[in-house]
Amino acid sequence: MTFEKLAKKEGVTAADLKKGLKNGHIVVLKNRKHKVEPLAIGKGLSIKINANIGTSPDLANLKYELLKLKASIEAGADTVMDLSTGGNTGQIRREIIRASSVPVGTVPIYEVALNLRRKKRPFTKASVNEIFEVVEQHLDEGVDFVTVHCGVTKGSIQGMNKRPRVCGVVSRGGSMMIEWMSHNKRENPLYEYYDRLLKIAKEYSATLSLGDGLRPGTIADATDEYQIRELVVIGELVKRARQAGVAAMVEGPGHIPINEIEANIILEKTICEGAPFYVLGPLVTDIGAGYDHIVAAIGGALAAYYGADYLCYVTPAEHLGLPNVAEVREGVMALRLAAHAADIGKGMKKARQVDLEVSRARFNLDWQKMLKLLMDPQKAKKIFGRRRSKTAFTCTMCGEFCAMKKTREVFGGK
Amino acid sequence: MTFEKLAKKEGVTAADLKKGLKNGHIVVLKNRKHKVEPLAIGKGLSIKINANIGTSPDLANLKYELLKLKASIEAGADTVMDLSTGGNTGQIRREIIRASSVPVGTVPIYEVALNLRRKKRPFTKASVNEIFEVVEQHLDEGVDFVTVHCGVTKGSIQGMNKRPRVCGVVSRGGSMMIEWMSHNKRENPLYEYYDRLLKIAKEYSATLSLGDGLRPGTIADATDEYQIRELVVIGELVKRARQAGVAAMVEGPGHIPINEIEANIILEKTICEGAPFYVLGPLVTDIGAGYDHIVAAIGGALAAYYGADYLCYVTPAEHLGLPNVAEVREGVMALRLAAHAADIGKGMKKARQVDLEVSRARFNLDWQKMLKLLMDPQKAKKIFGRRRSKTAFTCTMCGEFCAMKKTREVFGGK
Repeated sequence: MTFEKLAKKEGVTAADLKKGLKNGHIVVLKNRKHKVEPLAIGKGLSIKINANIGTSPDLANLKYELLKLKASIEAGADTVMDLSTGGNTGQIRREIIRASSVPVGTVPIYEVALNLRRKKRPFTKASVNEIFEVVEQHLDEGVDFVTVHCGVTKGSIQGMNKRPRVCGVVSRGGSMMIEWMSHNKRENPLYEYYDRLLKIAKEYSATLSLGDGLRPGTIADATDEYQIRELVVIGELVKRARQAGVAAMVEGPGHIPINEIEANIILEKTICEGAPFYVLGPLVTDIGAGYDHIVAAIGGALAAYYGADYLCYVTPAEHLGLPNVAEVREGVMALRLAAHAADIGKGMKKARQVDLEVSRARFNLDWQKMLKLLMDPQKAKKIFGRRRSKTAFTCTMCGEFCAMKKTREVFGGK
Repeated sequence: MTFEKLAKKEGVTAADLKKGLKNGHIVVLKNRKHKVEPLAIGKGLSIKINANIGTSPDLANLKYELLKLKASIEAGADTVMDLSTGGNTGQIRREIIRASSVPVGTVPIYEVALNLRRKKRPFTKASVNEIFEVVEQHLDEGVDFVTVHCGVTKGSIQGMNKRPRVCGVVSRGGSMMIEWMSHNKRENPLYEYYDRLLKIAKEYSATLSLGDGLRPGTIADATDEYQIRELVVIGELVKRARQAGVAAMVEGPGHIPINEIEANIILEKTICEGAPFYVLGPLVTDIGAGYDHIVAAIGGALAAYYGADYLCYVTPAEHLGLPNVAEVREGVMALRLAAHAADIGKGMKKARQVDLEVSRARFNLDWQKMLKLLMDPQKAKKIFGRRRSKTAFTCTMCGEFCAMKKTREVFGGK
C-alpha cells in the first residue's frame, strides 16, 4: 500500500500522516518481511483495536488458534497479538503470521521462557543473548510489533517489597523480568541493552510496543507510584527510539477507575510526548469477570475519547481462563463499539456518517438496509429474525405502537 | 422499612436522606398500596438500575413476563417497569405488582391506547377523563412510579414539521401524545391538567417520572431544540410537583454522543434543580443493535459518573425485537456494571470495598472466594469451570506463567 493510499484510508492528508510519523505521534505497523496491509495508529486517526489470541500451557491447539485468528479478523480486529505459551509456539506463530491479513504482534519474552523450559533450565538462567536472539527471531519471521517490558527497572519497582500492592504485578512479561532481575541481582536487560533492541527493530522497520509491566491489576493499585515510575522510564525510552528512528508506542493500564482515566491519558501524552497510547481496557471495576469485555468497553471508550489511540480487547473469559472462539468474537465487537463511540465523540465525520445512515434506514423502517449497516449484521439478523411482527414494517418490540411509524404519519421525516 | 433503615442501607445519615427528600434531590419509590421495600434514588446514593419488561402486541404471555421479572430481580435490578402492550395487560400488571419484590413502574398512556383499541375506538378519541382514570387505576393497583409524558407540549414540538428530525419521535408515549394533540388540535392533557396528576400521585405517595417523549433516537438528533425545549417544560413541572408535595424524577436521553453526555447531565441538574435523573442508556452510537446493552453500559457509566442517578437498562434485542429472558438478564448485568463503575468513579466506599475484596481474593489465588464475590458468580463459574488448569491454583489463561503467582513469590502480598 502506498503512503497516499494509507492516508486516504484514514481520511487524512498524506502531509498530516507524514508529519505524525516524523514526530512520532503516529506509528505504522508493518514489518518489512510481512506481507500485510500496513496499519496506521495515532493522532487524528480512527481508534484501532487489537485481539489477543494464542495458546496456554493448558490449552494448545494450532487449528483452534487459527479459528480465533479468523474470528478476530472477521469481527473487525485491526491487529492480533499471538500470546501463545503452550504447544509448538514457533509453528503457531509462523502459521498465524502467514494466515493473518492484519499486523501481528508478539511478546518475545514468553518464548524465551518457553525455550528455557524446553531445555529444562529455569527462566532466570536466560542469558542476555538468548533474550535478544528471540526478539530478532520474531522480527525475522515477520512479526510487525513486539511488546518489550523495558520499563520494569530497578528504579521503577523500588519499594515494592516494603510497600506491596494489592495485586502485585499482573503482567506476565513484567513478572518474568522481575523474576529475572531479582534472581540475578541485575538491571532489566531490555532496559540495559535498549540500544540493541532499537537496532533490531530498525532493521525490520518493526514497531516497539513499550509494555506496561507494572500496570495496576486492581482499582486499588491504579495510578500508583510503580505504574507512574514505569511510565516515566518509558517516556525516556520513547525519546531514545525517536532519536534512533524507531517507531514506538506505549502500553497502558490496566484497572483504572473512571475518575482517573483522563489523568492517565494526559500523563502518557505529556511524559511520552504524544506517542500512540495502546491501552488494555482499561477495566473500570474488578468485579466484572464474565463480562470484562463490557467493563473494558466502558473504560476503552472513555480512554479513546480522551486521547488513547489503540485499544486491546478483553474477552468475557478474562480473569477466568483462556477465551474460546465465541468469546474472542464478543470481545472484538465490544471494543469495536467502544472505539466507534469514541470516534463519534471526537466528531470524526466518517464515524458519524455510518450512524446517520443507520438511523435514516431505521426511521424509514427499511430493515434490510438498517441491518446491513450495523456493526454486526449477523447477530442483529438473528435477533430480528427470531420472530416477525404481525404489523407490517415494525419489530416485535412495539408492533403497531411503533413510535417512528407514528411520527412519520404526523410529521414526515428528513 | 423505617426511614433509618433506608438511610443505613444507602450508607447515608437519616438527616441527609431527609434533606434530600425535602429538597427533591432524592425520591423514594413506594406506593402506599404496594407491599414492597422502598427504594431511594438520588443525590449521594448509589446508582440504581431499572429493567423494562412487558408484552407487545406480537408477544404476549403472562408466564413468560413473570420469568423476565424473576430474571431481572435475580440479576439485581433495583426496579422493573411493566411496559406491556399485548394480551391481558391489566392481569399482567397486577400479577407483576404482586410478584415483584422491587418497586414497579408503568406508562399508563399505553393502557389508555389499549383500552380504546378494545372498544374499537381510535386512540385520538381518548377523553381527558379516560386518560386520568387509567393513571389512577394503575396507582390504585400499587404501581410505585408512573412515566407521564407531560413535557410534550405544543411549545416543545413547535417546528418539527418544518425542521424534522432524522429519527422523529422514538418514545412510544411521546408519539401517542403528539398523535392525540395533532388530531384534536389541543394541548397535551397531561400538561394542561397536570394538577390533577399531582393530586392523584399524592394520594398514593407515588412518584412521577417525567417522561422524555422527545428524547433523541439517533446521534444526529442529540441535544437538539426539541429535546431541550421539553426539558425546560419538565423543569417547570418539577417545581410544581415540589410545591404540591409530590416526588418527581426526570427521564433523559436517549442517543447521545460521548462528548455531549456531561452537558446533558449538567442541563438536567440545573434546569430541574437537582431532581433525580433517570436515563435510558444513553446510547453512544446508533450502530450497535445486537449489543446495545454494551452501548448503554458505556453511556450509562459515563452519565452516572457525571451525576445521573438511575439507569434504565437496554438489552441486546433493542432496536430489533422484544427481549427474551436471557437478554433481560444480560441487560441487567451490563447496566449493573455501569452503575458500579460509576459508584467507584465517584469514590463510594462501599463500592470500592467490594472491588478490594475481589482483588485480594484474586491475588491470593483463592478462586472460590473470588468467584463468589463477583457481580455474576453464576456466569463466571461456568467459564472458570470449563476446564481446569494443570498447574495448581491458576487458570487456563496463563497456567504456570501466572504473573500474580510469580510476584507473590518475589514480593509477597498485602
